[in-house]
Formats: sequence, C-alpha cells, structure tokens
Amino acid sequence: MSGAGVIAEILTIGDELLRGEIVDSNKSFLSDRLLSLDVQTRWHTSVRDDPADMTEAFRRAAERSDVVLVSGGLGPTRDDLTSQVLAESFGRKLVRDEEALEGIRGFFRAVGREMTLNNATQADFPEGAEVLPNPIGTAPGFMLDVDALGGAQAWRGVFFCMPGVPREMMRMLDEQVLPRIAKRKGGGPVVRARLLRTFGTGESMLDDELQDIAASGDVSLGFRTAFPDNYLRPVARGATAAEAEARLERVCVQIRERLGVIVYGEGEETLSVVVGNLLREAGHTLAVAESCTGGVVAESLSEVPGASDYFLGGVVAYANASKTALLGVPDELLAEHGAVSEPVARAMAEGVRGRFGASFGLATTGISGPGGGSEEKPVGLVYLALARREGTHVERFVFPLDRHRHRRLVSQAGLDWVRRAVLGEELLGPTLMRARGGASAPGKKG
Amino acid sequence: MSGAGVIAEILTIGDELLRGEIVDSNKSFLSDRLLSLDVQTRWHTSVRDDPADMTEAFRRAAERSDVVLVSGGLGPTRDDLTSQVLAESFGRKLVRDEEALEGIRGFFRAVGREMTLNNATQADFPEGAEVLPNPIGTAPGFMLDVDALGGAQAWRGVFFCMPGVPREMMRMLDEQVLPRIAKRKGGGPVVRARLLRTFGTGESMLDDELQDIAASGDVSLGFRTAFPDNYLRPVARGATAAEAEARLERVCVQIRERLGVIVYGEGEETLSVVVGNLLREAGHTLAVAESCTGGVVAESLSEVPGASDYFLGGVVAYANASKTALLGVPDELLAEHGAVSEPVARAMAEGVRGRFGASFGLATTGISGPGGGSEEKPVGLVYLALARREGTHVERFVFPLDRHRHRRLVSQAGLDWVRRAVLGEELLGPTLMRARGGASAPGKKG
Repeated sequence: MSGAGVIAEILTIGDELLRGEIVDSNKSFLSDRLLSLDVQTRWHTSVRDDPADMTEAFRRAAERSDVVLVSGGLGPTRDDLTSQVLAESFGRKLVRDEEALEGIRGFFRAVGREMTLNNATQADFPEGAEVLPNPIGTAPGFMLDVDALGGAQAWRGVFFCMPGVPREMMRMLDEQVLPRIAKRKGGGPVVRARLLRTFGTGESMLDDELQDIAASGDVSLGFRTAFPDNYLRPVARGATAAEAEARLERVCVQIRERLGVIVYGEGEETLSVVVGNLLREAGHTLAVAESCTGGVVAESLSEVPGASDYFLGGVVAYANASKTALLGVPDELLAEHGAVSEPVARAMAEGVRGRFGASFGLATTGISGPGGGSEEKPVGLVYLALARREGTHVERFVFPLDRHRHRRLVSQAGLDWVRRAVLGEELLGPTLMRARGGASAPGKKG
Repeated sequence: MSGAGVIAEILTIGDELLRGEIVDSNKSFLSDRLLSLDVQTRWHTSVRDDPADMTEAFRRAAERSDVVLVSGGLGPTRDDLTSQVLAESFGRKLVRDEEALEGIRGFFRAVGREMTLNNATQADFPEGAEVLPNPIGTAPGFMLDVDALGGAQAWRGVFFCMPGVPREMMRMLDEQVLPRIAKRKGGGPVVRARLLRTFGTGESMLDDELQDIAASGDVSLGFRTAFPDNYLRPVARGATAAEAEARLERVCVQIRERLGVIVYGEGEETLSVVVGNLLREAGHTLAVAESCTGGVVAESLSEVPGASDYFLGGVVAYANASKTALLGVPDELLAEHGAVSEPVARAMAEGVRGRFGASFGLATTGISGPGGGSEEKPVGLVYLALARREGTHVERFVFPLDRHRHRRLVSQAGLDWVRRAVLGEELLGPTLMRARGGASAPGKKG
C-alpha cells in the first residue's frame, strides 16, 4: 500500500479506563500526532486487562487497520498482559530479549534498587518483535508486524506497543514510532501544523477575528482552550514538506499580524518560558509578592530550568503580619484599606522589589473564594500591581471564577504584565476569557 | 438475562475525536455512572462520522454487548448520521416523530429563532425507537432495542443514543437512560468502591503487601499511580447496598491496618487537605521556605479553601541574598556549606518558623536540575528540614527525577512530614516511588 491512505487504529488497555476512573488523553494525543504524517485514525478502542477482550481487539484491529498503536499493559504487574496476549493472538511464542533485560537491570542499578522477577517479565516480547527503548522508564515498547508471516501487504497489522504512562508514551512515539511510520510510508502529501499560544482574549473573538484565514483552502485553523490560554492550531498541507511549511509560515505570519501581542508564544513555550527569556535577554530580574495566588506565580516561574538567572524569589504573604514583617507594608495601610486594596497591592509590589533588589516587583492580592467575599469586596476581586523603576501600575479586576481558575488567571495576567512591560507594551488585563462550551468569565474592570 | 453481568459498550461518534482535536471525557463519565448500577463497560469505541465505520461499530456492538450507549451524531448537520445509519444497520426505516418535531419547533419558538429544515431531521428516528427528551438542547435522544424483533434476549443490543454535548448527554443519561437500565435490570448485585490515597511507597510494594486482599472473591483491588502518590481502589460487590458497603468497609480497614500511616486519605482528600485539617484541629500553623520547590509547597497548601486558618505563608528564596535578608540564614553558612546543604536547610526552616511565628517551619533546598549538579552535589539532591518547638529534623535525599517530578516529590515529602509530625509519627521520607509501567524514582537516603 502506498503512503497515502494509511489507516490507523488506537487501542488503549486498562481496567481503570473502562471503569471510568481516568479520562484517556493518550488517544487524542496519538491521533493528533499521526495526522502530522497524514495518517488518519479510523478507530479508537479501549479494553480492560482481559485476555479475551484484548484478543478480540487485537485481531479485529489487525484485519481492519494498517497501523495499530497500543498503549498500556506493559508494566510489571499481573494486570499487564499486552506482550503475552498479543503473542497468543497471532500464534507467536513469547521470548525474553536479553538486551532489553540488561537495559531494565541497568535502570534499576542506576537508581540503586533491586530488580524484581516481575520486572524481568517486561523483557518478554512476541517472537519477531523489534524492541523500542524507553529511556525514562522500565517498560520497553515494541513493534510487531503480524502480517509479516503472510507477507501479503506492507502495511496491514503493524503493531506499535507503548507504555500507558503519558510521558513515556509521548517520548517513545516521537523518537521510535513516528520515524518508523514515516520511513515505511515514504512519499505522499505532507501535513505541517503549529501551535500558537494566545492570552487575554476569548475563543469566540479569536474565531471572529480570523474567520477569513480559517476558511482558506490548503490551511485549516483549529481552536483550543487551555485555560487561561487559547491556542490556535493552523494545519497546512502540501505536495512536499517545503510547500506545506511555506503555507504554514504564511498563515502564521498573517495571524501574528492580525493579533499582535496577544500571541505570546509557539509550541511548547509557556508564558513563564517566554517571560523568562525576555527578562534574561534584557538583563532584568523579577521578584513576586503573592497573597491570593499563594505561590502559583512563583511556582510557574521556577518550573522553567535556569529560572534563577532572572527570578530572584518571592514572598507568599498569606497572613497580614507577614505583609508587614517581610514586605514592609505599613500596618496603617492594612488597617485603613484592608489587605485586598489598591494601596496594599502597590506597597506589596514595591516592597518585594526593594527587598529582593529586583528590576520588577509583581504583587497579587484578592479574594479567590469560595469564602471571604463581601458586598464591597466580592469573591473574584483582585488587585494586580507591577512595580518598576518608572513607577508602579495597579489595576482592579473582578474574575467570577472558581478558586482554582481564579488563581491561574490572576497568575497568568501578572506574568503577561511582565512580558508586556519588557516589550514596552501597554499593561492590559485579560478582556474576555471564555472557556469552550460553557462558563464564561469576562474580566470586568472596576 | 438477569441483572448480574450486564455488559455495556460505549460508542462515541465524531470526526473531531478521531483527529485528536478533543479529549473525549464522555466515555469515562458514562462508564463511571454505569458502574453504580453494577453494569460493567467492556468496550470503548470511537468512530468518525462515516457510515461504513459506524455500521461496523453498531453491528459489532449489538453482537457483543447488552447495552450500547452512543453519544454524538444527533445534531442537525450533514455529518450527523447516527439515526440514519443505525436504522440502516439493522434494516429499519427512518420515521419522523411528530411529537419530537413539535418539541424541536417549541425549542426554537422559545429562543425566538426560525426552525430550519435541517433541524426537522432531528425528529427522524429508526422505526421502533423510543424518543428520549432533551430539555436543554434541540437533539432528542432515543432508545432502540435492535434485538426486539428476534425477541431472543431481554438485553442484547439495546441502544441508547444521546447527544455529544457533555451537559446534554449527562442530563439525558441521569434522567432518561439510567432509570431505564435500572428498571430493566431489576434487582441484582450492587457495587461500592472507594479510593485510598497513599504516599511514600511504590506500586509494586503495595501490590506485594496486599496480594491476599486483592485475591479475595467479592472484592477486587485496583492500583493507580498519580505521581507522586499511589492510589488503591477497592471495589466490593454484594446482593444489597448494605452488604457491598460492609464488605468494602471491611477491606478498607484491613488495608489501613496493613499499611498504617502510608494511607493518608480517601476520595478527593489531597495531602494538602489532610495536612490542613490536621493543623486546624491541632491549632497549629505552618510557614514554608522554598528553594528548589520554588513555590510548589505554598501553591498546593493555598489551593485549599480556608488555608489561611493554618498556612501563614512563605518565602521563595531562590537567590542566596534572599535566604539571608528574608530568612536570616547567616552569610557564613552559605559561604562555607553552599545553599544546598544540611546547615542551610536547617537555618531556612528555623528562620521561616521564626519570621512567621509559626508552629512549624518547613524548608526545601536542592538541585532539581537539569543543570546545576556536581559530583559532590548531584542533580536530584535535596535537603528537607522541619523546624518545630522540639527541634529541627533535617534529612538528605537523592531523587533521580526530572525537574517537574523532583519538585512535586520533594513538596509532597515535605507535606507528609508535617502530617507525620502532627500525628506524632516518625519523619520518614519516601522510600520507593515507582510510576506505573515505568519510571522509577526511589528515594535513596544519603
């Protein structure tokens, strides 16, 4: 079969899936990645750790699909049956792979633990399988072409078995599985996609704004909300990689021209990464004083490797006494205006900037709820303050969101201010945050 | 077929699912709800809006499953093919339901819009279907017993078709579908399940430890890793709710006796919630000084509503200067031992306890990587310190994990120390952290 029209099936295995204990996000991830090779997924199937059901699923998949991506069932416990059942389903023996065994042994040595007998079974594979290394876990994956004995078709029934743990699966997919599929597939139309990250405006506004771009022929434009961000996903097709790449580039330039500073990054670049790079390049430093966000801002800044180049640290000033003792917020201000107020936000930002000797001091103080609101100061109220040499900017927002989302939105809005400040842009807050399919959360300016 | 052993299949339909554009959370929701009626889901299947694939999926589901819950494909567009294809798959005519049509017309009248011809097709159902009203959307659902003509079995191949929009689907499930399944099912076994949360030991050790419990007849025991925790999910069956509940209670008591303090909570109780409740009850307060965790501990403590009762705040002391200025760590200690050292961890914990006037001061200092390691102080090294009236306990660990997981594990280990301290238990660190199917992360004590 030629490259065009390769059909994939994705098969995930695990009792926990069929009991509804977890939402299976592996399938959408795998389908999305396959699409970049122009491989269409026609079936998503999930079964329990049950040999009869697994056998039926494996056999049916081998009949109707060219490529079968399996995730789950490779662990060391009694429940983990993928290798064994796949072997039996197609009349193969299970053989121990000495090299894989040595790899597992090495993994345990490296972490100073004894390898158990259970773990050794992770080196058992169906005869004829090609082992796929797992550099970040004990369970190797494997490729098995169950049609190879018949030799009838190049494609039908090629299994790629991967761990169920998302990060191990993702890495194995990108490093081992996709290159093998691309190689077997050879030529054919090429698809290129990119992810543009935006913050500060709603999905429906983006949709309106970009309608003409979304409608053009060789490019499709997807939208996805990843609260508090909205992602745009342009997908371009071409006869060659160069053609698809050029089309994609053209549409990305168009989108950036249209949306301006609202697009903050691409691909895996989180806002913390973008802010960090800007600060490092400009030789600036940042310290944060958090009340309602309680560490969310510091956590997301310090999550980025090398953050100590520009992030000096912060104070989580939950108790009022700590606002005074650690940030130098005058007692009188707290007594007169309360902790959630414009003057206190300003004093926190200036205080933390001074204490840490940072270029920027960012402060949050608000009421994330569910308790603590009043008529004058409702749940959702927040003051955001950014202190810099030129002065301190403070603004009041009300975000009617649950506690978790309130803290995330406030943190992201604060980081976005730092980005805008370094870029010399106006310090605007989020104007319209809308979660897909429901709950709307406009940022009302007070 | 009697109530016992009713097998369900869940079938979701939509191109967007198979392109990986959205994560399908309907399936886990549906399976979880079915389990409360002791109906086991054995198959999850998703197909595109494609008549051939839908036909195959419908026919196969009717053969192998008693109840088939379908979501998606009931909308007014050309892509919405569920009624038509289901009718054709089982040789039925499509007939317009006048009552449903009137309902749709009423829906449009109520929102002041014109009903289009497309919308009228939403009143077309396979002959013999029972319409299921949709009070919050235009697409009614329906029940169709495709085995009814044969009359052979009460159960095999009973389809319930619902909209794909989650809130419409959920409401129709609870109001229309589950009551019909319960009624058809009559009496029969009842299932009760619970989630026990553990921290500090690995999944394979838990598995070993609880093997006899896992093997007993009326109770099954599932394991799930939610790094850095491991969850246990005992599921008990009984002829009545009381019997299932009693069995479940018995096995939970057994597990808690066996594992002791390793079980920290149940259900939705995160470690932060448990620690918070313990602190509140004991009238204790907590402040944190974070270096490598950079706010993770503060963030998870403050995520809990009402945390200000016991969590006073903290310092994220990323820059060395802030360790001195805000926590009073002597310059000499930093110069002599370095920031990642036993004496500095101790001084941070004692410093933050003093500054905030808290009962407990918790400190982390380590190298989460990927950079910053040396032979003497490798990436993964961390000192954890807990200061309390009785004195300060410090310990050295090496967790060979990536940055993200290192910070999570250190934070959780710190919170677990606070829990153990309030409970009067020994301050033990995680001995063996193993993620399911792979990446292992033992805590070697130095």
